[in-house]
Parts: sequence; C-alpha cells; structure tokens
Amino acid sequence: MKRFELLANTMADEIRSGSRPVGSRMPSVRQLTTQHGVSQSTVFRAYYQLEEWGLIRARERSGYYVAPGAALKQEAAPRAPLAVESAKVEISDLVFSVLEAARHIDVVPLGSAFPSPQLFPLQRLAKSLGHSSRLISPWSTVVDLPPGNEALRRQISLRYLGMGIAQPMDELVVTNGALEALNLCLMAVTRPGDVVAIESPGFYAALQAIERLDLRAVEIPVDPESGVDLQALQEAFERHPIKACWFMTSFQNPTGAGMPQDRKQALVDLLAEHDVPLIEDDVYGELHHAATHPLPAKAFDTKGLVMHCSSFSKTLAPGYRIGWVAAGRFAQKVQRLKLMTTLSASIPAQAAIADYLQHGGYDKHLRKLRGAFRTQLAAMDAALRRYLPDGTHWTLPSGGYFLWLQLPPQVDAMQLHRLAIESGIGIAPGPIFSARHEFRHHVRLNFGHPWSDGMESAVKTLGSLIGQASS
Amino acid sequence: MKRFELLANTMADEIRSGSRPVGSRMPSVRQLTTQHGVSQSTVFRAYYQLEEWGLIRARERSGYYVAPGAALKQEAAPRAPLAVESAKVEISDLVFSVLEAARHIDVVPLGSAFPSPQLFPLQRLAKSLGHSSRLISPWSTVVDLPPGNEALRRQISLRYLGMGIAQPMDELVVTNGALEALNLCLMAVTRPGDVVAIESPGFYAALQAIERLDLRAVEIPVDPESGVDLQALQEAFERHPIKACWFMTSFQNPTGAGMPQDRKQALVDLLAEHDVPLIEDDVYGELHHAATHPLPAKAFDTKGLVMHCSSFSKTLAPGYRIGWVAAGRFAQKVQRLKLMTTLSASIPAQAAIADYLQHGGYDKHLRKLRGAFRTQLAAMDAALRRYLPDGTHWTLPSGGYFLWLQLPPQVDAMQLHRLAIESGIGIAPGPIFSARHEFRHHVRLNFGHPWSDGMESAVKTLGSLIGQASS
Repeated sequence: MKRFELLANTMADEIRSGSRPVGSRMPSVRQLTTQHGVSQSTVFRAYYQLEEWGLIRARERSGYYVAPGAALKQEAAPRAPLAVESAKVEISDLVFSVLEAARHIDVVPLGSAFPSPQLFPLQRLAKSLGHSSRLISPWSTVVDLPPGNEALRRQISLRYLGMGIAQPMDELVVTNGALEALNLCLMAVTRPGDVVAIESPGFYAALQAIERLDLRAVEIPVDPESGVDLQALQEAFERHPIKACWFMTSFQNPTGAGMPQDRKQALVDLLAEHDVPLIEDDVYGELHHAATHPLPAKAFDTKGLVMHCSSFSKTLAPGYRIGWVAAGRFAQKVQRLKLMTTLSASIPAQAAIADYLQHGGYDKHLRKLRGAFRTQLAAMDAALRRYLPDGTHWTLPSGGYFLWLQLPPQVDAMQLHRLAIESGIGIAPGPIFSARHEFRHHVRLNFGHPWSDGMESAVKTLGSLIGQASS
Repeated sequence: MKRFELLANTMADEIRSGSRPVGSRMPSVRQLTTQHGVSQSTVFRAYYQLEEWGLIRARERSGYYVAPGAALKQEAAPRAPLAVESAKVEISDLVFSVLEAARHIDVVPLGSAFPSPQLFPLQRLAKSLGHSSRLISPWSTVVDLPPGNEALRRQISLRYLGMGIAQPMDELVVTNGALEALNLCLMAVTRPGDVVAIESPGFYAALQAIERLDLRAVEIPVDPESGVDLQALQEAFERHPIKACWFMTSFQNPTGAGMPQDRKQALVDLLAEHDVPLIEDDVYGELHHAATHPLPAKAFDTKGLVMHCSSFSKTLAPGYRIGWVAAGRFAQKVQRLKLMTTLSASIPAQAAIADYLQHGGYDKHLRKLRGAFRTQLAAMDAALRRYLPDGTHWTLPSGGYFLWLQLPPQVDAMQLHRLAIESGIGIAPGPIFSARHEFRHHVRLNFGHPWSDGMESAVKTLGSLIGQASS
C-alpha cells in the first residue's frame, strides 16, 4: 500500500470511529505533513481519496470538513473501499456539454482527445486514396464486407508479427475506428443489466457505452504509474458477476499510465482464471516515447479472451475512421454485429490505408510523430512548471499525448473548465472520466499539438485561473 | 377486405368450428376456384394466409391439411388475425446463413441486396475522392464530426428542396450508410422491451436490430401493391404500446410495394394522432421507374416525428458507406448516439460525395440507372414468364430492383434456396424477411444486375427447380 493510501485509511478509520465527527474541520495540509512526516503531495492525494469515498468535503478557501453523509456512508461502505459497488452510469450529458464547449476551432485544444492533424501525412494519404480508388474493383463492395479488406488485414497482421504476436487474419475485423470496435466487443459479450469492470479514471466512451447499453459499472482504480489495480480487480471478481473488463493497458486515457509487462501477464492470468473477456483499448500503443513498443495484454492471451482494439485515427489518418479488433474467440460474433449495425467500414478508406501501410513509410512517420510528442511534452512540462501554482501535480507519461494534472484541493475542475472556456481554452475536467463524477480536482491536458505561443499563453492563463481559485 | 382474405376467413371459420377437423385434407385449388368463383392466385394466397396463421400445413406433393396445433391455436388466436401479438425476434442465424451462402463472387446474384456496382460511376467518384482529399483541411477531423461535412449536408438539403421539402440542415446527421442511420434512430426512441411495428414481410436488418436491442416486434402486413396495411396498423396502435414504426414506404424491400401518396399522408396523420415516431427507410426512393420521384412520408410530417433515412449506397457509391437521416425532433439524440458509437462517417468519403453531388452529374447518372433497372426488369419478367411453371406469381414493382416471387404452395423457399445455391444461384428466401419465419413460399429476386446469358440460364435453372419441387 502506498503512503497516501495508508494516510487515507488512517483518517477514514478516525472518521468511522467517530473521533472526527461530521462537520468537524480536518487538519491542515501543513499539520499533516509535520505529523506524519509525508510530503504535501501525499497529503493531497489522501484527501482526494477521502473525498472520493464521500467522507470529507472541501469548502472553498477554508479546507476540508467531515462530510454530512459520512456516518451513513460508513455503514454502507464496503469493507475494502477500492472495490466499489457496481453502479448505473449517467454520464453522457456531462461529457457532451464539455465536448461541445471545446469544439470550436479557435479554442486552444488542451482538452482535445486528438493530436494535431497537422502531424499526419495527409498529402501522402490522399495519394494512396486516389491511387487505390482508381484501381479498386467494383466487386470490393462484396469482397471487402466484414471482416474487411484483405490487404489491410494482412498489413495489420504483419504489424502484430513485428511485435512477436502471431495474429490470425481471420480473427481481425475492420471497423469504423477503434470506437466502433470497442462498442461491438462490449455488445458481443454483455446483455442489459450485466456488470462490466472499467478504469477509474477512464475513457468516457466506456462510460457512455455502458450507459447506452443499460449495463452496470464497477470502477477499478488506476494508478498513474502502474495502471489498473490488480488487487482491486481480484476483489471485484470475487464480489461481482463481472462479464467483461474494458481497460487501456498502455498510455491510459486520461492518466497516461502504462501497465508494466509483468502486470499485463498477471492481468491476463487473472482473466483466464475467472474466464472473463478483456476489451483492450490500445489506440495509443504505437505512441511510445521510449524506443520500444510495449506489448499489449493480447500478447499474453492464450485463450482468445482478449479483444485487442486499435485504429489509425491517433497515429496516421484521423477522419478516415479505420480501426480494427483482433477479437479472439469472439471474432465471428463481432463480425456479425458489425454487419448488422454499420455493414462495413468505408471501402476506399480501407484500401487507401492498406496501400499506405505497404508503400507510404508508416514506421518512419511513427518515429517522427513520437519525436514530436516527446518534444511537446517537454515544452508543456516546462510551461506547467513556469506558470502553475504550488499544489498542482502531474506525472510525466511515457507515451501518448495526455497529461493528468492534479489541481490544488480548493480548485474545482468543472469550474476551472468553465472559466477556461471563457478564456478560449479547452481542458478535459476529471469528472467526465468517472461514472460517479469523481476526480473533481483533476484535468486532462493534451500535448498532441505543436508547441506555440498560443499554447504557452494558454498554460499561463490556466496557471492564473488555478492560482485565483486556490488562493 | 380482399377476395383472398374473405376466402381465408371463411376457411378459418370452418376449421375453428370443427367442420374441418385436425388432419383432414383441405380442398384442392381446382375445387375451390370452381366452388367460390375465384382465381387460382386468390386460392393460393388464402392458403398461404391460413398457413401463416398456423391453421394448415402443406405436405409435399399432396396438398394442404388442417394443422395438428390448429385447435389449440384457434383458442389462442387474436380475434383480428392481422394485428398479431408482439414477439421477441430470433432471426440472425437464419439471415446470416443465407447471406453467407450467397457471398461468393461466382454465385449468380439473384439473392443479392445490392445492384451491380458496374452501374455506378466509380471512376468519376475516384476523381472526386482524389480531388477533395488533396484539398481537405487537416481540421476537417474536428469540423466534420457529426452532424457531418457541411458541404455534403447542404447538397442533401438541396435534394430535399428539389422534392419540395424544406429540410433544415441542422436536422441532417451523416451516417455510415442508411443501415447505421436506421439503427441509431431505433436506439434513439426505444428501450429494451419496447414494442416496435415493422413490416411483414420486411427488411431483415429491422428484425436483426430488434433482436439485438431486445425489443419486441408487431408485424404489420404489407400488400405488394399498396404497402403497409393502415387498418392493421391502427388496430396495432390500439392493442400495443408501440414506441416506433420502421417502414419502407417506397419500393419496399422485399415486395417492391410503394404506398400511394394519400396513404402516406394517412400514415403520417395516424402517427401524429398516436404520437409515435416513424423510422422511414427510403433508400430506394431515387430509383423510381416512372418519371417522377415519389414523395416520402417525411414530406407530410409537420411534427418532426418522421426520421427519414437514406444513403448513396444503392444509387451512387456502394462501399463509401455514406448515408444520412433527416431526424426531425430526434436529431440531437441521434447525433449523440453517432458520436458515442462510431464517432463520424469517413471524412474523405463525405467530402468526395459532396464534390460529386456538386460537380459529377448525379441526376444524369440517376436517369441512366433508372433506365437500366427498367430494362433489366423487363428482361427478368420475360425470362420468368418463359421458364417459371404455372402457379408462380409476381407483381411488377414501379421502382427499385427487387421482385417478390410467390411460389407454388408445394415449394418451400428455404429448400429452393439450398438447391439454388448448389447450382451456383443465390436467391433470398421469404423466411428471412419475417420475425416468425413466414413467407415460406416466397423469394425475393434481384434485377439490379445487367441482363446476361448467365442470368437467363440461372432463371431457367430456377424454373426447373421450382417445377421439380411442385410436381
């Protein structure tokens, strides 16, 4: 157990035992650092944890107090607070209100889910598109129906081979981006009312899918450094009839967390033991900042339980809407769901990407793209250090283009989002990544865009908004 | 009531009253034509109706007998047999087994759902694709998110205007073909367990969607000449809590039926009276054989209750997967479902079709295409007359490229499908168009392919298969 967890548990016990009554003020950060010999950051994380358990509440400019409902919550609380109850999810309105506010082209895209399209070889892709569509057989509308264009699936299969994974082509289903793949996989293995394990914080599309399909979610905590908490997952398996997991194992959205390889192996073992399928969202796997590609959990899967979903939308061709799933034993079911709902991915787009993968220099482009993200992360890190007030924390991710910012406890992420939008800056506030609208003191920042004066100035503005809110 | 319905009801009464006991042989077709002064075709339709009510059964080469379950069924049967009970739907396995059998390129495509791709201006489209993808803004991946590419929606809106329909652009959502539009609309207005009115026979994708979403279906009979039976629909509204209708009002799949304009108006009035939304599948509307475009039901909708779905897949660009819905008051909900499930239609494909609509000569192409279908229908009609045995009937549709064939009562459509596939010929057997696997003596034939010796010979083979099965 980490230091902040120890501290949080200690204080939770004090609240539960009644030695800290409802309405009483919690000790100041300074008091606790001295008393427990821990860093300010540890205290803040402990307080966030208590707040997320519903045991304490922040009052603006005044600190934390034991929450009114804490007594009730203590009785209802599970013995192990990390393995939470499954819950119905209502997230879409919140997510859409945030996304729509940030959708104007002149909003600084720190809240965007996409990297800059200017980093992609769009002209080279247009050449592949023109070339392949002139050569395309009229019969491709029959032949390229799901599972999809054969040349494309061969290229994708070769990329798996490059990671040392022998991926049969007939388990690959081409989809309209990874988002469709993820949704089809979830439909393939669940029925309304089923329980699904997701990450907390996690990609809001998982929450939306769960809401849309009338499923229930069990949220498994994600550590920004080591990823999904396997202990909590194990406990969740024991307590809930979990029908599927939906996890992002490399460069997780929003935390940037990557599970170390041995933990991915352990995850797959745990799944096999409980015979639970994993929907593995791996859209950022290719965007490693270090030299080597992290293996996905799929690499350790010997039972066909892992449905590995990815796409070209974040690495090559946003807007083409070409993704895929290596669906293991669920391939036929996914393929049929695809035929029933959207029939097929756009056939010229499939052919264009197949052509590009074969002739366009994808690996060279990826190396360049990874370099750009490394540079942009360094620039953002420097700007954050320059402009953000004390009490703001972040971990540098080792891949992808998201950075998970922990705000001072007085700063509400939703309010910061509203203030930022008024200043023409998009950010992705923590509550959109949680079924229960937690992470009220976190925001996700996007460093997928070339650094510019506008970005620098946006971070500066963000810094003063945070400063004002926390003072 | 039509003649065959009168006859069917008379015989149903005889069975119910016990004057025709279980297991007894029904009169021959010849006997009944003489006795009632009706045509053979009327007798056959009456027998199909009785069979579909479960009151009689065909025995091969021997005629019809009162069904073993008829006594039981009589008690359970609703007073008005046309407004059937709502039912759970289990159709997918049957549909997929039929579709997969016919998916080989060397199978004669009489069972195909698509017209020949060789009738489409694929080279001109490739030009639009190359042109527009070179000019495309990198930011289109943000700007062209749902509702979709603005130039494309403007062109679609102009086509509505050409029919005299003022369609606001902001109610248009671009989708991955009409199939996605239909599915999104159904999701937008239903929850698991809800009852939906569909056509019988009807497009199997509606049945699959209902099965997938755990809905219940009430089947409304379709007359090959006048379309959906409004009397039956009215009764269904009174007896079931219907949440939505999914109908194809022009050149219906599989019957080719088109509702006359005044009946479309009456349909919309009925929907408004009961405040029930209509998902209008209009993918064949542009394929009228006569000079003028039939108005969709959408043209009469003043309350935003009609979601008008169409695409370019059957008229211009199969495989591009670009469709749309004019979703009325449900536009925002549909748009959000689109964002949640597949995010966006392929952006180069949207741009290409926008460019083609503006510069490619769509109307000229459509005139040519309609001419081809007229010619091909004439050729198929002549071949059917030449080779099909007596007792086979069909109605010539006034649009689209499907012909609904009524087989002699001894011929089972599923068996004919299996025999035809063995001879390298695809047909679409009636049961895939029905929640309860009815229409066992119907098949849908496709005349969307240029007539050829291969087609001629396939119809000849089909004729002898039918002849053998019916003799």
